[in-house]
Amino acid sequence: MGANSVVAHGGGPTAVLNASLAGLVEETRWRGSTGALYGARGGLAGLLRGDFIDLLALDPDLMRRIGEAPGSALGSSRLKLADEDYARILDIFRRANVGCFFYTGGNGSMETALRVARYARDVGYDLQVIGIPKTIDNDLSVTDHTPGYASTARFFACAARDVGEDNRSLPSPVCVLETLGRNAGWIVAATSFARRHADDAPHLIYFPERRLSLERIAADVERVYRRLGRVVIAVCEGQLDDHDQPFGADVDNAKSANYRLASNLGHTLAGLLTQKLGIRARAEKPGLLGRCCGPFASPLDRAEASACGRAAATAAAEGHTEVMVALGRESNAPYRAATFLTPLETVARVERLLPPEWIHPDGNDVMPALAEYAAPLIGEIAEWAHL
Amino acid sequence: MGANSVVAHGGGPTAVLNASLAGLVEETRWRGSTGALYGARGGLAGLLRGDFIDLLALDPDLMRRIGEAPGSALGSSRLKLADEDYARILDIFRRANVGCFFYTGGNGSMETALRVARYARDVGYDLQVIGIPKTIDNDLSVTDHTPGYASTARFFACAARDVGEDNRSLPSPVCVLETLGRNAGWIVAATSFARRHADDAPHLIYFPERRLSLERIAADVERVYRRLGRVVIAVCEGQLDDHDQPFGADVDNAKSANYRLASNLGHTLAGLLTQKLGIRARAEKPGLLGRCCGPFASPLDRAEASACGRAAATAAAEGHTEVMVALGRESNAPYRAATFLTPLETVARVERLLPPEWIHPDGNDVMPALAEYAAPLIGEIAEWAHL
Repeated sequence: MGANSVVAHGGGPTAVLNASLAGLVEETRWRGSTGALYGARGGLAGLLRGDFIDLLALDPDLMRRIGEAPGSALGSSRLKLADEDYARILDIFRRANVGCFFYTGGNGSMETALRVARYARDVGYDLQVIGIPKTIDNDLSVTDHTPGYASTARFFACAARDVGEDNRSLPSPVCVLETLGRNAGWIVAATSFARRHADDAPHLIYFPERRLSLERIAADVERVYRRLGRVVIAVCEGQLDDHDQPFGADVDNAKSANYRLASNLGHTLAGLLTQKLGIRARAEKPGLLGRCCGPFASPLDRAEASACGRAAATAAAEGHTEVMVALGRESNAPYRAATFLTPLETVARVERLLPPEWIHPDGNDVMPALAEYAAPLIGEIAEWAHL
Repeated sequence: MGANSVVAHGGGPTAVLNASLAGLVEETRWRGSTGALYGARGGLAGLLRGDFIDLLALDPDLMRRIGEAPGSALGSSRLKLADEDYARILDIFRRANVGCFFYTGGNGSMETALRVARYARDVGYDLQVIGIPKTIDNDLSVTDHTPGYASTARFFACAARDVGEDNRSLPSPVCVLETLGRNAGWIVAATSFARRHADDAPHLIYFPERRLSLERIAADVERVYRRLGRVVIAVCEGQLDDHDQPFGADVDNAKSANYRLASNLGHTLAGLLTQKLGIRARAEKPGLLGRCCGPFASPLDRAEASACGRAAATAAAEGHTEVMVALGRESNAPYRAATFLTPLETVARVERLLPPEWIHPDGNDVMPALAEYAAPLIGEIAEWAHL
């Protein structure tokens, strides 16, 4: 087996992805690895070019500081591998004497990792493949939660609290807070942590697990508006209406990557609500800031991301393959979690949605069980004083 | 002269408006005021209803904690006074035995304060009127800067840094960061503080002081994209095109308040750039979060906001009227500022734009003089480590 290792990232960066990288590098160094640990610049795209950087050769202090930065120092990509790419990857591994491949990402990336592993096995190339969990969406199976989620959840909980504070200060009746999140409602659900009192924002939370009709949301908004004279709505960018369309459909799902526009759901929804109810509405869309805002990176999230990177190095040293590092919760009070390994096939392309029983039957709020699960991850959200 | 005072806020809240209120209350209490200090709930709208709360009767510790919260604990409004409202206000003042009126706001609010003062003088009602500066837009005249600006400037500088980090991590070629700011470029200019190295985001910064053609911005974007393969653009919500129209014109300036939609400039501009250049573009719009995000409230901003509130109480005790508290910079290194008083008529309805010589001749960046002015206000923006 090749003496060297390669690490690559797949998909969007997070506030703590670099912490996983730093953890992997530190643990590999600590174990006195004799081989190199190459980082593939720009994810699979860089991997296919053999664009490597020797991470063990870097100043440990630089790596420590990178571990504190949001984004991805190594870069990433959303490239989907074509059939011929697998042979090309093994070719590059062979020439670089690579015997271990670490791949960081969500359930799509874990499927890619599994495919690389299976291809290597099929052609008789001796390769360990270790997955490292990473996604703000928290939609990976088996693991209790994913590194990256807690920081984004904390960002949007604080955003909902502070937009709520603004909305309370000045009559600006309806405010739509568009959160990140495509198919799973984990992030939008976190906005419930903004609340301490019955009338605190957000007043309505919607979930991509449930289709949403404009009539339904308008009725909810009107009811809250009559009672409070203000409404803050949390809704994620992936929310579909009851015709399975994004509100306003500015998102073009056509194949041409060049012409795919990003979500404008919040603004579109605000416009539709204004038209329908005659109440002023506006939208805030922090967008990517929700996944890369350094000051909101949660210390717990960073520590767990680092632990996952270190556990991946340990798994490699112990000879494991076709596994992903996962987080298991051992205790809720005090919160305690530990890493364990799960076969890649248990997580590859498996999407974990919000449990239906954690969504209020009315579809516009969370249930208490969500708080029990998420509170230790999101941490304390300070309450502002009021008159 | 009446023994009591009233304080009201005009316009949007900020991250430190409550600090000005707390400073006013603390200083008034410290001076052993024998009269009441009433807070008008909900700005002029509350004032016209006589909806008052006795602020000196509140627990000082609660007031201290309110001073740390973003938003406006007292509420605010954007109400424009009608001619008959002035008599009504004096009627309310007369009944509540009010001899001093504190009004917090920007240049529009200072005009309102001046009109109230003149009306009182005209009808022979003995009234002191003291303005307290407050606007994230930093567009008040005479004062070196306005409480509220530094926190918003810091928010958007950090946002540009972190969105830039995300944009660097994953090929997502063009990212438009929509900042707050209507007619003045102070806030969008602050995004320049995100940069440490030549290729750091934002790569292009546009200013509402200059009209902007789509052709011009597209040429700029294409040039940066060819060099770096990525572009982060900072542009404020008030930016107009060369036909004096907002890009996409989703902002309806019609009189009907109910149907006025908020800005969607970033998204619209991203769409136009994608169409014109065939390069993927997306937009982030933190929106109101930029003025009310608690964790970004700058300690300097909070201290100065509090000082302005205290100085207003002092000015009242010393018998001043028809003045606004202003901040004067005494030294840049070390930074030192002090409050002084300026006649309301020097600031009422006077809009201070970015000095033309602080905008790069190409119209897409700041000039170094901006940094000299803004650096002490914005403070250190930490740099993230890179490979």
